[in-house]
Amino acid sequence: AINPRRLWDSLMATARMGGTAKGGICRLALSDADREARDWLRGACAALGCTVTVDEVGNMFALRPGRRPDLAPIAFGSHLDTQPTGGKFDGILGVLAGLEVLRTLDEAGFDTAAPLMLVNWTNEEGARFAPAMLGSGVHAGVFDRAYADAREDRQGVRFGDAIAAIGYRGAAPAGSVRLGALFELHIEQGPVLEAEGRTVGVVTGVQGMRWYEVAVTGREAHSGSTPMGLRADALLGAARLVTEVHAISLAHRPAAVGTVGSLEVAPNSPNVIPGAVRLTVDLRHPDDAVLEAMETRLRAAAAALAGDSGLEVRLARIWDSPAVHFDAGCIAAVRSGAAAAGLPTRDMVSGAGHDAAYIARIAPTSMIFVPSAGGLSHNEAESTTAEECAAGAQVLLNAILAYDRA
Amino acid sequence: AINPRRLWDSLMATARMGGTAKGGICRLALSDADREARDWLRGACAALGCTVTVDEVGNMFALRPGRRPDLAPIAFGSHLDTQPTGGKFDGILGVLAGLEVLRTLDEAGFDTAAPLMLVNWTNEEGARFAPAMLGSGVHAGVFDRAYADAREDRQGVRFGDAIAAIGYRGAAPAGSVRLGALFELHIEQGPVLEAEGRTVGVVTGVQGMRWYEVAVTGREAHSGSTPMGLRADALLGAARLVTEVHAISLAHRPAAVGTVGSLEVAPNSPNVIPGAVRLTVDLRHPDDAVLEAMETRLRAAAAALAGDSGLEVRLARIWDSPAVHFDAGCIAAVRSGAAAAGLPTRDMVSGAGHDAAYIARIAPTSMIFVPSAGGLSHNEAESTTAEECAAGAQVLLNAILAYDRA
Ligand SMILES: NC(=O)NCCC(=O)O
Ligand SMILES: NC(=O)NCCC(=O)O
Repeated sequence: AINPRRLWDSLMATARMGGTAKGGICRLALSDADREARDWLRGACAALGCTVTVDEVGNMFALRPGRRPDLAPIAFGSHLDTQPTGGKFDGILGVLAGLEVLRTLDEAGFDTAAPLMLVNWTNEEGARFAPAMLGSGVHAGVFDRAYADAREDRQGVRFGDAIAAIGYRGAAPAGSVRLGALFELHIEQGPVLEAEGRTVGVVTGVQGMRWYEVAVTGREAHSGSTPMGLRADALLGAARLVTEVHAISLAHRPAAVGTVGSLEVAPNSPNVIPGAVRLTVDLRHPDDAVLEAMETRLRAAAAALAGDSGLEVRLARIWDSPAVHFDAGCIAAVRSGAAAAGLPTRDMVSGAGHDAAYIARIAPTSMIFVPSAGGLSHNEAESTTAEECAAGAQVLLNAILAYDRA
Repeated sequence: AINPRRLWDSLMATARMGGTAKGGICRLALSDADREARDWLRGACAALGCTVTVDEVGNMFALRPGRRPDLAPIAFGSHLDTQPTGGKFDGILGVLAGLEVLRTLDEAGFDTAAPLMLVNWTNEEGARFAPAMLGSGVHAGVFDRAYADAREDRQGVRFGDAIAAIGYRGAAPAGSVRLGALFELHIEQGPVLEAEGRTVGVVTGVQGMRWYEVAVTGREAHSGSTPMGLRADALLGAARLVTEVHAISLAHRPAAVGTVGSLEVAPNSPNVIPGAVRLTVDLRHPDDAVLEAMETRLRAAAAALAGDSGLEVRLARIWDSPAVHFDAGCIAAVRSGAAAAGLPTRDMVSGAGHDAAYIARIAPTSMIFVPSAGGLSHNEAESTTAEECAAGAQVLLNAILAYDRA
């Protein structure tokens, strides 16, 4: 049995790395705070005698040998990076519960047949470098290293330079570390488990998700002396798109979601009609065909805007992660792991993207969810109780052992 | 007669101070580029033997004695600060045409009865420190020095600290420098003069203008796992206000204008539902009663948004500059000045705010407009020809001499 107290203490210790005044974490990928958390994790794994390998894009792999070196490792983990105003559990729980699994097995002197491997994936959030799930995507061959290196944050810093700057450009070629399977424990980030009073989500898949960058270009002019009819107001056009993204999502209710999360105005002065707006659109649906229909409507809205407003509208899809269906064997291992712990479960499809979604392309994979209070995530107030964290870690351990036996 | 070539050369020389790659100027109030332009102006005035006084809020006054020291000076000028992506004429023309007036009189050895005074007002644009027309507003007693000092730019730098940093906190108490009248030459910043083929606008007043700051607060949450019905999306709410500001303006067409020029999203991440948006609203109309009706509708829209969306909406009016009617004597001087130069004129009300609007509260005041190509201003492509600049400067000189004679 895992040690709930030790797990909670490690969550609270690492929460100080990038910790915010409001009790959240700002630990953007490849920031100094990220390096601090990585160094801490490396130390904790080394203390258990694990070999830590870092690959070219900064993914960290801590290996614990098994009785049968011929078997590919059973992997588990998540990510240590956060949103700018993120919480203390998103990603971190999956990594630290994995560490707790290793510590528990060590304490018990238990050796699995397959080697075990704890993973910390780079830049899962996509908040600093779009798209999300970049490190796991490179590992799974969805992206190549050159693509990752060329990603830029909003200050124009390249991913490749940022990773070198924090000293986490590893020697292992991308994708070279072998994984026999992957289990990822994560908070739900939605309201379902809490509403139904269940502790564990057996995650059967991940919905499809696409990101777009939209650039609306108008003409800067004086707010006081330019008649309404002579304007090309980029922000007025952008507002129409924000409203349309909402309408598109409602049209495919209840499963569809659509969000404009980021929007920037230039020159951003009270008495200048905005000349340029850049915004991102995030569209999601469990069914790729519906997602395609949503995209079609978004493109039509952008074209209509350009057609009747004198604005130039450029729309580029910058990310496409199709719907994922997890491995039946891994799902069964999670289900039996929860049953062994006597915890009430519910099958569910993840609304959020996860590293597991990309790894599912190259290895049997599934996920475990635990509740998020109020369904809140990507928020400093994100909250999961110590008991729920412990329940998740226990199911993770049970699932790994069940998979190892099978 | 003024020297068109000398005027143009001084415009082009100062355009390099904060000059942009696209041929515009970025010379935000109290920036290093502003200090450079101020130093240049001080030197040019000193070279003419003028006494330069700087007041507590950085307004600069260059005095040329007249034959009758008992008379209050006839003032003229405008501002040297620009928008972040401003043009080469907005404000600057009025200051440099004033310098050209002084140079022309010197060359001709002509002494006026009243002393003359060239003025550069601080922070007219309001782009760095809201509201606009801050220096002239303090001079006219609309604002006090403490209010001005406490204005903050978007980086949190206070006006009072910024003025000290560039060495332009003068010794003269705010409002202590006496003005007998004020003439301000400015580009029209709108399309009317060009469309009608007239060179000179005889400006009879300035429309009313109000600025608001709106803070929309929602709840940050995950873009993928938060159902549409559980969201409090601050940007979706802000988009409704942007659209409503446009609708309010169209409802009072053709004279009304309304603009959201600045809008900022937090935390501004593609996969986080925006938790907070701050935006500015700029409403204008020549009739204060209509402006009041526009404000009422804006307040109703903000209240309705808060009522049916779960968002918190705070709206504060941060600036109110009522409609201004200029002095009949000064208007007549401008009209006769244009007639003497043989230039076609048109009476007009200014859509943009100007320092003259505040000075009109304490001294007889009027303005002269020259055309803006395509009506474009607050844009790096802002353009007025050398001939039009010269025509404006000649009318300024003629108007000053006519007023001095009267
Ligand atoms: N789990 C999580 O928050 N991932 C970020 C990627 C996304 O779903 O936007
Ligand atoms: N003339 C000018 O651009 N003034 C700025 C103040 C305003 O009208 O917004």
